[in-house]
Amino acid sequence: MTDPTTHRPGDRMRAEIDEQPRRLADVLSLGAPQARRVGTLLAERAPRVVLFAGRGTSDHACLYAKYLTEISLGLPAGMMSPSTMTAHRSRPDLSEALVVVVSQSGTSPDLVETACVARSCGATVLAVTNTPTSELAAIAHHHLDVHAGPEAAVAATKSYTAQLLTLWLLVDAWRGGGGTGAGAVPAAATRQVDRHASVTQLQDRMLFAERLVVTGRGYAYPTAREAALKIMETSYLAAHAFSGADLLHGPVAMIDRLHPVVAVAPEGVSAAAMAPVLERLRSLGAHVAVVGGPSTAHAARGDVVVDHGLPEELAPIVDIIALQQLAHGLAVLRGLDADIPRGLTKATSTW
Amino acid sequence: MTDPTTHRPGDRMRAEIDEQPRRLADVLSLGAPQARRVGTLLAERAPRVVLFAGRGTSDHACLYAKYLTEISLGLPAGMMSPSTMTAHRSRPDLSEALVVVVSQSGTSPDLVETACVARSCGATVLAVTNTPTSELAAIAHHHLDVHAGPEAAVAATKSYTAQLLTLWLLVDAWRGGGGTGAGAVPAAATRQVDRHASVTQLQDRMLFAERLVVTGRGYAYPTAREAALKIMETSYLAAHAFSGADLLHGPVAMIDRLHPVVAVAPEGVSAAAMAPVLERLRSLGAHVAVVGGPSTAHAARGDVVVDHGLPEELAPIVDIIALQQLAHGLAVLRGLDADIPRGLTKATSTW
Repeated sequence: MTDPTTHRPGDRMRAEIDEQPRRLADVLSLGAPQARRVGTLLAERAPRVVLFAGRGTSDHACLYAKYLTEISLGLPAGMMSPSTMTAHRSRPDLSEALVVVVSQSGTSPDLVETACVARSCGATVLAVTNTPTSELAAIAHHHLDVHAGPEAAVAATKSYTAQLLTLWLLVDAWRGGGGTGAGAVPAAATRQVDRHASVTQLQDRMLFAERLVVTGRGYAYPTAREAALKIMETSYLAAHAFSGADLLHGPVAMIDRLHPVVAVAPEGVSAAAMAPVLERLRSLGAHVAVVGGPSTAHAARGDVVVDHGLPEELAPIVDIIALQQLAHGLAVLRGLDADIPRGLTKATSTW
Repeated sequence: MTDPTTHRPGDRMRAEIDEQPRRLADVLSLGAPQARRVGTLLAERAPRVVLFAGRGTSDHACLYAKYLTEISLGLPAGMMSPSTMTAHRSRPDLSEALVVVVSQSGTSPDLVETACVARSCGATVLAVTNTPTSELAAIAHHHLDVHAGPEAAVAATKSYTAQLLTLWLLVDAWRGGGGTGAGAVPAAATRQVDRHASVTQLQDRMLFAERLVVTGRGYAYPTAREAALKIMETSYLAAHAFSGADLLHGPVAMIDRLHPVVAVAPEGVSAAAMAPVLERLRSLGAHVAVVGGPSTAHAARGDVVVDHGLPEELAPIVDIIALQQLAHGLAVLRGLDADIPRGLTKATSTW
């Protein structure tokens, strides 16, 4: 537990945010060989469908990997609803499926059971955890350690980016890539870690907000979801994430001039798809701050520019760092302890 | 457009809520033969995976059908991310997939394109719309008309319950069922329509709320999502839906004593899975109102009892009616026009 005499609120989360470049380098050196081995095996095994299961932050890593699977492997993919197997006891035919279960701790009972049942239903099961000794890792056919090191802050940061990079390496090997693009990730992460001040203005603006909307499309949608979760966990704001398209199909009615909108729009195809969403939000007079690249975000109008130069599919690994910094800074500004959110413990057990 | 001299705000939505028993009876008489025909064909064709695509309310009908597919057909199922095909131009191998595209209007360009691309990638495509003359209906191999009649209120109500019942009939025929359970649905819907007053107390309590959380598990999760959307659309509250398990993995930090929680917990397996979630919420002192059956909800403590006696997989069709009544009543109480939410039009176009 934290020693109240020495602990400064949020220091632990801040340290783990700042530790990410080093951990991402560890993924490339320690994790990559296994990720490439499993990716190559999966290419041979050729599953016909890929299903993902995770909770919280790990669910967002799953969503990222779902986009990657659909776009770059050309395979149908889906997010599992664990309760169908755990509560409703369904036993689907998964003989042609790869089931990827992502969990920092590898302990949540519903995910362990999902992996067990999926295996007994014929699936190839891959566990991605930060805990190689966990039950989940033991149950799966294959295990990838994300090498994030012990994570002490309740709000996950470094385990998330390590999950993303590990999953990217897996998919890249599967499609026969050489993994070269990833080499630039640790340095790009370092640049964003050093630019903590880039979020200061947005942080100030959000200090007294009661709620906000975070939106993004394509690869930026998992980033929007994870950003909203970090803000909910550490600042207790009602942070609502929507894909840009879903936002326009109803929820846009609650957009007004009194609550902030954060749009994740890095360079590339997803950002182009966000353009009509941004236009619509601005026509409603909403206060929109863009977190994006030099062509989509403009610091002068309060946006957060994340200038990493990474290809679109690797961008989420660095984009989320800016949003972790925002969540952390906002919690500190609001006088909350981002390290120990109320009502949460590090490993959540659900059934 | 509405004539302001005769239009009373929300009357149209109310009329469409109340029309549901009749429209559900139409689904059973007019829609069932085609749903059963297509369900039988699909059983013969035997797709290996089922993928769903929809936006807004129709997305929640897809989610319901995903649970039904996983639990009662034992097939892997997933929600598509249309942007992977439309923006990122992925062309997955869908030769063993059934793709179900649900849309009230059948016109949203991204869904039309998704259906086109899925078909060209080898999928069997089924469109479920309220507009048999729509582009989406024309593109698909099979089409199911949900027979909800013209829907004038922007917030969809009757088209949603008609979608759910149509999808249930489809899956029931596919699994070789006789469709008999559905016969009780229209009368059960009538009973809830007549019990509009059952939501009055909860409505009163929520009058000045700024935000709320709606939660449910299993079949009740799509109901929670759709309830949150109705409340956002008509009352502009930030209504946040979470599956019970996901809620505990982070967002629970923003739960406090100052904002309401609505838990959808009808009788059955899903409700049992919700018990630990309810316990946790209550231990945090949250104001939780249950919308559920006679064994889970207690009117004396402000809950909403929906006593339909339907099996769990049909319950969502009537449970949502209580939540539509809540959304409508809340909007009227807040002086808003539930028929014409700000910033929305009936058919939303996204790309």
